[in-house]
Amino acid sequence: MTTPHQARELARKGGLVTTSGLAHGYLQANMIALPREYAFDFLLFAQRNPKPCPVVGVLEEGEVNSSLLPGGDIRTDIPAYRVFRDGELVDEVDDATDVWRDDLVTFLIGCSFTFENALDDAGLHLAHIDQGKNVPMFVTNVQTTPAGAFAGPLVVSMRPQPANRVADAVRITSRYPSVHGAPVHVGDPAGIGIADINSPDYGDAIDIPEGWTPMFWACGVTPQAAVMASRPSFAITHSPGKMLVTDMRDTDVQVP
Amino acid sequence: MTTPHQARELARKGGLVTTSGLAHGYLQANMIALPREYAFDFLLFAQRNPKPCPVVGVLEEGEVNSSLLPGGDIRTDIPAYRVFRDGELVDEVDDATDVWRDDLVTFLIGCSFTFENALDDAGLHLAHIDQGKNVPMFVTNVQTTPAGAFAGPLVVSMRPQPANRVADAVRITSRYPSVHGAPVHVGDPAGIGIADINSPDYGDAIDIPEGWTPMFWACGVTPQAAVMASRPSFAITHSPGKMLVTDMRDTDVQVP
Repeated sequence: MTTPHQARELARKGGLVTTSGLAHGYLQANMIALPREYAFDFLLFAQRNPKPCPVVGVLEEGEVNSSLLPGGDIRTDIPAYRVFRDGELVDEVDDATDVWRDDLVTFLIGCSFTFENALDDAGLHLAHIDQGKNVPMFVTNVQTTPAGAFAGPLVVSMRPQPANRVADAVRITSRYPSVHGAPVHVGDPAGIGIADINSPDYGDAIDIPEGWTPMFWACGVTPQAAVMASRPSFAITHSPGKMLVTDMRDTDVQVP
Repeated sequence: MTTPHQARELARKGGLVTTSGLAHGYLQANMIALPREYAFDFLLFAQRNPKPCPVVGVLEEGEVNSSLLPGGDIRTDIPAYRVFRDGELVDEVDDATDVWRDDLVTFLIGCSFTFENALDDAGLHLAHIDQGKNVPMFVTNVQTTPAGAFAGPLVVSMRPQPANRVADAVRITSRYPSVHGAPVHVGDPAGIGIADINSPDYGDAIDIPEGWTPMFWACGVTPQAAVMASRPSFAITHSPGKMLVTDMRDTDVQVP
């Protein structure tokens, strides 16, 4: 098995398409780095929106590592980064060292890859994995709770389940609030403003077997949507699907 | 039964010795208000120390109410307030209107009165209540994780249980991470630097029945200990045992 340290080495070397499946049992994290002047507003945004933005770690101004990535460097240990200026995506880089700034505060936010492990361990279906696709993600018409400079729509990921496993999927993911927890919506895509379940805003469209129910979980791309809606002067994020693999164990964030 | 609104009215009128037992089923909160310049550091301190500092709401600079206290006023709706300057307790007042400042950001932190309801509902013993006392609280030799300007010792509350109910007390309180969750320490008081279990630093000494195990939960007085240790220029807190009664239901913060 890949260790978290080895997974971060792979990310540094470059060429990883996704971190999904690496270092089973360890938490992966979304990343967003913002100038210090936005730090309180963003941390408050996360506190008010814990389902899409469960903060699992913060690197203070000037810090580039922490106990989540011992001996690592946040500027290089993610496979790819997105750079935003005034809310516009202006660049995508494999190494963020040259674009990094000393005044950045870095927020690490739990990723649903963790509860996918738990669903898989319980024999539940992950249709996107079975079909060799990235999970489909949708921008909804549900607004997050604003905080200071930040507001924007809730982004969700979708994983369909057969009727006899819907309750299991709720029960199991409920145990992982630090990686988005229980679904925010079960069934009726139109109820959260999704006009066409076959046209995701991010990730890939997947086939939903007859009789299966679409289940929607809050998604760690929500902070990127907040950046695009709220237009802070500068931000660096991970690229979707290319996460930070941390030394935190999945079991560390499990609740009863 | 008292509603949260009625409980806040009682607090405004003055003379409440404690809010314990008021508005069963609704969450009570610790309060700390700090000047805006300390807001990010304190919210980060809370994020890094979720067991003693589970944030359930934040009033931004200039706000004196929120959906947690509809129609209320944070400056009057707590029975008593403590005022700190440079880490020193300088005053205790029933109404904080005159000492309030426009640059304060107010943090509301879950209180263990909520899981006491759940323990009581399950037939568990609450020795301090049976004995008509305030819960005993101890400053430990365990240090919180520092963040920016804030550091200090972990404060715990102690509730002893008979051997056959220790597991139940763990299991039940685990379901309420927003009000301190599972105990941080079970047994051996010396292991967290408590020299004399009969001399609490706050609250009252209680009799521990023969054969019962002392159980220690992280306590919402920890932020006050951090203020005393870290000496921010100004802070207003609630007085221990005199909490804000919120409109949030206990069930809103329950995990599976």
